[in-house]
Amino acid sequence: MNASRIHDILKLEPQEQGIRLNGWVRTKRESKSFCFVEVNDGSCMKNLQVIIDASVDGYTDFIGRLATGASVAIEGKLVPSQGKGQKSEVQASMVEVVGDCPGDDYPLQKKHHSFEFLRTIPHLRPRTNTFGAVTRVRNALSFAVHRFFQEQGFVLVHTPIITTSDCEGAGQMFQVTTLPLDEIPKTPEGGVDYSRDFFLKRTGLTVSGQLEGEAYACALGRIYTFGPTFRAEHSNTVRHLSEFYMIEPEAAFFDINDDMDLAEAFLKYVIRFVLDRCPEDMDFFNERIDKTVLSTLDTILSNRFVRMTYTEAIKELEKAKADFEFPVKWGIDLQAEHEKYLTEEVLRKPVILTDYPREIKAFYMKLNDDGKTVRAMDVLVGRLGEIIGGSERETNPDKLTARMAEAGLNEENYKWYLDLRRFGSAPHSGFGLGFERLLLYITGMKNIRDVIPFHRSYQEA
Amino acid sequence: MNASRIHDILKLEPQEQGIRLNGWVRTKRESKSFCFVEVNDGSCMKNLQVIIDASVDGYTDFIGRLATGASVAIEGKLVPSQGKGQKSEVQASMVEVVGDCPGDDYPLQKKHHSFEFLRTIPHLRPRTNTFGAVTRVRNALSFAVHRFFQEQGFVLVHTPIITTSDCEGAGQMFQVTTLPLDEIPKTPEGGVDYSRDFFLKRTGLTVSGQLEGEAYACALGRIYTFGPTFRAEHSNTVRHLSEFYMIEPEAAFFDINDDMDLAEAFLKYVIRFVLDRCPEDMDFFNERIDKTVLSTLDTILSNRFVRMTYTEAIKELEKAKADFEFPVKWGIDLQAEHEKYLTEEVLRKPVILTDYPREIKAFYMKLNDDGKTVRAMDVLVGRLGEIIGGSERETNPDKLTARMAEAGLNEENYKWYLDLRRFGSAPHSGFGLGFERLLLYITGMKNIRDVIPFHRSYQEA
Repeated sequence: MNASRIHDILKLEPQEQGIRLNGWVRTKRESKSFCFVEVNDGSCMKNLQVIIDASVDGYTDFIGRLATGASVAIEGKLVPSQGKGQKSEVQASMVEVVGDCPGDDYPLQKKHHSFEFLRTIPHLRPRTNTFGAVTRVRNALSFAVHRFFQEQGFVLVHTPIITTSDCEGAGQMFQVTTLPLDEIPKTPEGGVDYSRDFFLKRTGLTVSGQLEGEAYACALGRIYTFGPTFRAEHSNTVRHLSEFYMIEPEAAFFDINDDMDLAEAFLKYVIRFVLDRCPEDMDFFNERIDKTVLSTLDTILSNRFVRMTYTEAIKELEKAKADFEFPVKWGIDLQAEHEKYLTEEVLRKPVILTDYPREIKAFYMKLNDDGKTVRAMDVLVGRLGEIIGGSERETNPDKLTARMAEAGLNEENYKWYLDLRRFGSAPHSGFGLGFERLLLYITGMKNIRDVIPFHRSYQEA
Repeated sequence: MNASRIHDILKLEPQEQGIRLNGWVRTKRESKSFCFVEVNDGSCMKNLQVIIDASVDGYTDFIGRLATGASVAIEGKLVPSQGKGQKSEVQASMVEVVGDCPGDDYPLQKKHHSFEFLRTIPHLRPRTNTFGAVTRVRNALSFAVHRFFQEQGFVLVHTPIITTSDCEGAGQMFQVTTLPLDEIPKTPEGGVDYSRDFFLKRTGLTVSGQLEGEAYACALGRIYTFGPTFRAEHSNTVRHLSEFYMIEPEAAFFDINDDMDLAEAFLKYVIRFVLDRCPEDMDFFNERIDKTVLSTLDTILSNRFVRMTYTEAIKELEKAKADFEFPVKWGIDLQAEHEKYLTEEVLRKPVILTDYPREIKAFYMKLNDDGKTVRAMDVLVGRLGEIIGGSERETNPDKLTARMAEAGLNEENYKWYLDLRRFGSAPHSGFGLGFERLLLYITGMKNIRDVIPFHRSYQEA
C-alpha cells in the first residue's frame, strides 16, 4: 500500500478504506486505553487526527515515543470523526515511529515561539504552522507568476547573475572574485590586477535583469525574468533584504498604457490564484497574522485601478488636511506617508501614478515632450505603498545618451544597450516587482526576513 | 485595432479579416509593382509573409527602409496564400517603419553567421532562427519543470545564492565580498578581517541547494529547487559553465526506488511537454542542428529505463569487446566512453545505475549494509551520458559524521544538517539535474554557451 498525502486524504469520503500515511507528530493526547495523535506532513495546513487503540501491536513500546516532532508511518482506516473540526480521522492498525525526536533538545515544543527566535533556526522553522503556510503560499505565488506570463505569451529569460556592467556604480553591488583576498595581485601602477581574476575583469552580482531583458524583448517580443537580485545596502529594516527575488516583464510594442494594463492584470491574477490554491493558509494569515489581509486583497480584486499623473497626485496631497512629515511640493519623491494617504484616504483603492519628474527616476525611462517628466508608472496599494515600478523605455539614442551622461554612466559599457535603439528600435515597456514585498502584502507578515527560506541581510547570513 | 501576434495569426482561417501586427523584417523581395516582406515577431519560428502593393500609401517612402532588422507596424487583410510554405499571408493596407535598421552596421545580415561570432553579440543573437528557437525551448522546458513538480505536490523552495558554508571547500567557489580589494582590512594576526565584510564572515556563491532543500523536505515533505548555481572551475569545455541552472527535487519518505521513479517520470514529462509546445522549433533543431534529436528523444519516451547496479555495469563493461581508453575495474568512476557503450551499444536505451562505490560519491549518500557502496543512482542516456545524479540520503548521524570526517568537512558547519537526523529523521531522497545539459540533449546544440542567454565561463563574461 503506497502512502498518501494528508492533503489528498482529507478530500476522501470517510468510508472505512485502508490508508497509509507518513508525517510528523504535532501533538498527542493520551487516555487510559487509547491516544489521539495529530499528524502533519507539510502537504497542507491541516493535521490528520489518528486514534490509536491500546490494542494496536507494540502500543506500550511506541506510545512514549510519539513525541512532538517524531516522524511516523501509520496504516489504518479512514472513518468519520466524532470530534469537532474534522470530517474524518484515521483509526490506526499499524504505527511505526520512523525517527524519534528527543523532547529535551528539540527547539520546537508546543509552546509559542517568537519569529525572532525562529529566525535563528531557519532549517527547522518550516515545521511550524506559520512557516509551512508561508512556504506553500510562496510556492503558489511563484507558480502563479509563471502561469500568468506563459498564458500571455511571455517567454522566461534567465538574465545573468554575475555581471560586468555597473560595477563602478553606486557602491551597492557585491563583488564576485576568485582573487586571494590575503594576497591581492597588483598592477604595476598599484591597482588591483583584475586580469588575474576569474573573468579577467571586475564582476559583481546583478541588481536587475532589465537591460538584458530589453535585449530579449527586442527579439522575442514579450519576455519576463524571475530570479534572485542583490543589493549590498547597509539597510537593516523589516523591508530590505540583500538577496531577494524580482519579477521583470518587458514587452516590445507596449506603450505605458499597455504596461499599466499588464501590471493590473498581473496583480489580480496572482492574488486570485493564491486565494484559490491556498484557502486554508490564507485563512490562517487572516486570523493569526493580520486581520485585514483578506479585505485588503479584495480591494485589489474588486476595483479598477485609478490612473493619475504624478502632478495630479501632488495637487491632491497639497489639498490634504493631513500633517505630513515631509512637505509636499512638485518634484519630491513621494514618501510612504504620501502613498498611504492617496491609497487609503483619498482613493481607497489601488492607484497607478504616471509621468514622474525626470530627476527622481532612472535614466532609461522615456522622456515626455514637456522635457520635465518621464513615462514612469508606479502601482501603489494600501498598507504597503509602491508595489510595482515600471516605465516605457527611452528609444531615442540621443536622449538616452544625454540621460546616461547626467546619471554619470560610462557610455562605453552601454554600447550594446544603445544597439537596441540603432537596429530596428521599437517602443517597449516593462516593470519590476519585488517578490518578497508582494508576499508581505499577501500574507500580512511584517518582517521580510520571514517570507524567504534563508534570509540574507546586512550583517546577517 | 490591437496588434496580434504571428503565432496566433497563423492559426486563423484566412478569411479576409482585418489584421494588425508588429515585428521585425527578416527578408524582402521586390518586384516592379509590389513587394514581399517576411516579418517575424519572436512569438514563433515562422515568419508571416506580407504583400505590399505599390498603391499602398507612402510606398516610395518606406520601400527602401524595409531592410532586414527594421521594425514595422502593418495593417491589412489575412488572405489565402498563392505561394508554397504558408497557408495564409497578409495583404497590407498600411505599412509603417517604426525603427530603421542601417544595413551597413547591422551585424545580422541575411548570410550565415557562425555560433562563435554570434556569441560576441549576445544581445542580438536571439533575433536569429536558432537562438529564437533555443529561447522558446528553454522557456517551455522551464515551465514544464514547474508544471511537473506542482502536479506531483512538490513545493518550490528558493535556497540561498549567497552562502556561508563550504567556503573553505574545494576552491571551486566564487567569493562574495564588499571589502575594498585594494585595501583589505587585516586582523592583528595578519589575516583578512572578515568581521568588516558585509556579512561579518566569509561568503561565497552556492554550488548546490541540496542541503537546504533537505531541511525543507523534512518539513514540507516534497520540495524542489530550480535556480542558478556557480562553479569557479578553470574548465574551458563545451560542457561547462561557471553560472548555470540546477533542478534539485528532494522528498521525505522516498527511498532510492521512489527517487528513480521520479527521475524517469520527470524526464519523460518535460520532454513530451517541449515536443508538444514547440513542434516547429524542435523540427528546426532536427533538420538544421542534429538529425538525431527527435529519434534520441523518442528512446526516452518509448522505453522503460533499465535499472542496474554499478557492479553489474562493470561486469558488462569487462565483457565488452570495445577498446576503452580508461581500463575498467570495480571502483573506477565511469568515463564518457563507458557510459556511451552501456547506453548506445549494450542496452540501446536509458539506464539508471545504482549502488556506486562509496569512494567516488558524496558524503551525504546512504551507506549500504555492505559498507562498500552507497544508495546513489545516476541516469545515463545515449549521446550525453549522465543526465541526472541522485541518491537516498544518509540518515544515521554516526555514519554521516564519519563520512563528513572522511571528506574533510568541518562538522561545526553542518550542525544544522545533523539536526535533521536528530529530530524526527525520515528516509529521504533527491536528485540534481543541470538544466543546460538537458537543453543540449533536447536541442542537439553542441556548445553549452549557446543554450543560456548570456554565458559566464572561465575568462568569459
